[in-house]
Amino acid sequence: MMTADISVSARATTMSSDDIKSDMNGERQAPMQVIVDLCVVPLGVGVSVSEYVAACQRVIEASGLGYRMHAYGTNIEGPWDAVMAVVKACHERVHAMGAPRITTTLKLGTRTDREQSMDDKVASVETRLRASDPGASEA
Amino acid sequence: MMTADISVSARATTMSSDDIKSDMNGERQAPMQVIVDLCVVPLGVGVSVSEYVAACQRVIEASGLGYRMHAYGTNIEGPWDAVMAVVKACHERVHAMGAPRITTTLKLGTRTDREQSMDDKVASVETRLRASDPGASEA
Amino acid sequence: MMTADISVSARATTMSSDDIKSDMNGERQAPMQVIVDLCVVPLGVGVSVSEYVAACQRVIEASGLGYRMHAYGTNIEGPWDAVMAVVKACHERVHAMGAPRITTTLKLGTRTDREQSMDDKVASVETRLRASDPGASEA
Amino acid sequence: MMTADISVSARATTMSSDDIKSDMNGERQAPMQVIVDLCVVPLGVGVSVSEYVAACQRVIEASGLGYRMHAYGTNIEGPWDAVMAVVKACHERVHAMGAPRITTTLKLGTRTDREQSMDDKVASVETRLRASDPGASEA
Repeated sequence: MMTADISVSARATTMSSDDIKSDMNGERQAPMQVIVDLCVVPLGVGVSVSEYVAACQRVIEASGLGYRMHAYGTNIEGPWDAVMAVVKACHERVHAMGAPRITTTLKLGTRTDREQSMDDKVASVETRLRASDPGASEA
Repeated sequence: MMTADISVSARATTMSSDDIKSDMNGERQAPMQVIVDLCVVPLGVGVSVSEYVAACQRVIEASGLGYRMHAYGTNIEGPWDAVMAVVKACHERVHAMGAPRITTTLKLGTRTDREQSMDDKVASVETRLRASDPGASEA
Repeated sequence: MMTADISVSARATTMSSDDIKSDMNGERQAPMQVIVDLCVVPLGVGVSVSEYVAACQRVIEASGLGYRMHAYGTNIEGPWDAVMAVVKACHERVHAMGAPRITTTLKLGTRTDREQSMDDKVASVETRLRASDPGASEA
Repeated sequence: MMTADISVSARATTMSSDDIKSDMNGERQAPMQVIVDLCVVPLGVGVSVSEYVAACQRVIEASGLGYRMHAYGTNIEGPWDAVMAVVKACHERVHAMGAPRITTTLKLGTRTDREQSMDDKVASVETRLRASDPGASEA
């Protein structure tokens, strides 16, 4: 278990630095950032899957990336290659635990117009909700 | 806006009561419960979609169903028909706001072996994480 | 099995006719059309799920809606309520077959700017591919 | 356009060979195969997205991987890293075409119990449908 954790975060680090490219003027460009929503479902292991979901949470935690679990998946944010290394490591871990088959659903959001974190996305909607709430008392 | 909110919750109520069926012995069965993860994406309205996401949050709130927003969607739980009425109402609302096209991603979880809420799902994973945390100090 | 098939298509018919609304000028409006991509995954039934997928195909076929299966789901098109009745009927059927838990992934596309079928969507991309193919010999 | 195509297939090749590992007995292990369903949605580019979908089809075609487009996405199969390089290349291409924001839905299926292609999956369901079809005349 430890081995896999270490290898994930090592790979993640390597990939982030690999991912820094130079544009046509020779300037370094930041790697493409992504926010994903990851839901890993093991098949052939019975009806309870929380043991496998918990194992994925440890893989994600070990990567050092920002993440937040919800009731139907986990949001993860960071450089594309680092996040994708975590998704692959989750599949490898869950297979290593004995699951013969996995089906995963992944949403991936990227944008080039501006930086936006998971917290920014939620705050942006919450600000709109407060601003337009007919029961709110703002001046 | 109010009209649509009222119609959603009215429909939801009608559908939940419709949904109570009798089994072969004449006993009333509870309607099928579902936990969904809903992500509504309007197209053709520019790059910022938070106004539309906020409108969906108000539709969901007005339904009276349990829900929790995250950075890449919203978990909603309740009777199948009531939850699906909310999904449809979100599409209707977002089109009514002027979005000519919508693409939505929806995960839907149902189970017949036992009841399980959104909170139960998260708690189940967190319990496992605490139990197996090598750094935890429980005896 | 037959009973369920019949009840699905009956419900679908009822819902489509229910779904025809009148707009503010008293004119009848067509119901909202949707194209979905449905992937139903039973849990707790072992590693092979083709028996359950086949059962869902029969539910879809019995509905009379347009559909096309691919290697990771099935596209279905039609009025929103008819399509959603089929999705619900798939969950009910798969539970009735003994699966204690189901996780489904559903993409839903609606548009108000024009009608567009599954075939139109594929043709639209294929036309572009032919038009811009550097190796194509079109006149 | 050509540059990107070339770079994708180069990367895919590198990664597939990288991905061949040795197990504890020093035997070479095949890389983890995956079947995905990819649906890339550009935001902020208006209501028609077929130009961007067509560009992704060219990226996928250039990779040499097996794929099949349907009305709500494209199935792709191959070694995990090669397939994921294509997904990343689609995001890069669509951003390079001017889309400021992308939201993608990806399903990923892996299994260790046996090899299974996209064609196998469809055939497996079709065999079951024929076998149990009440109208079929096979003995």
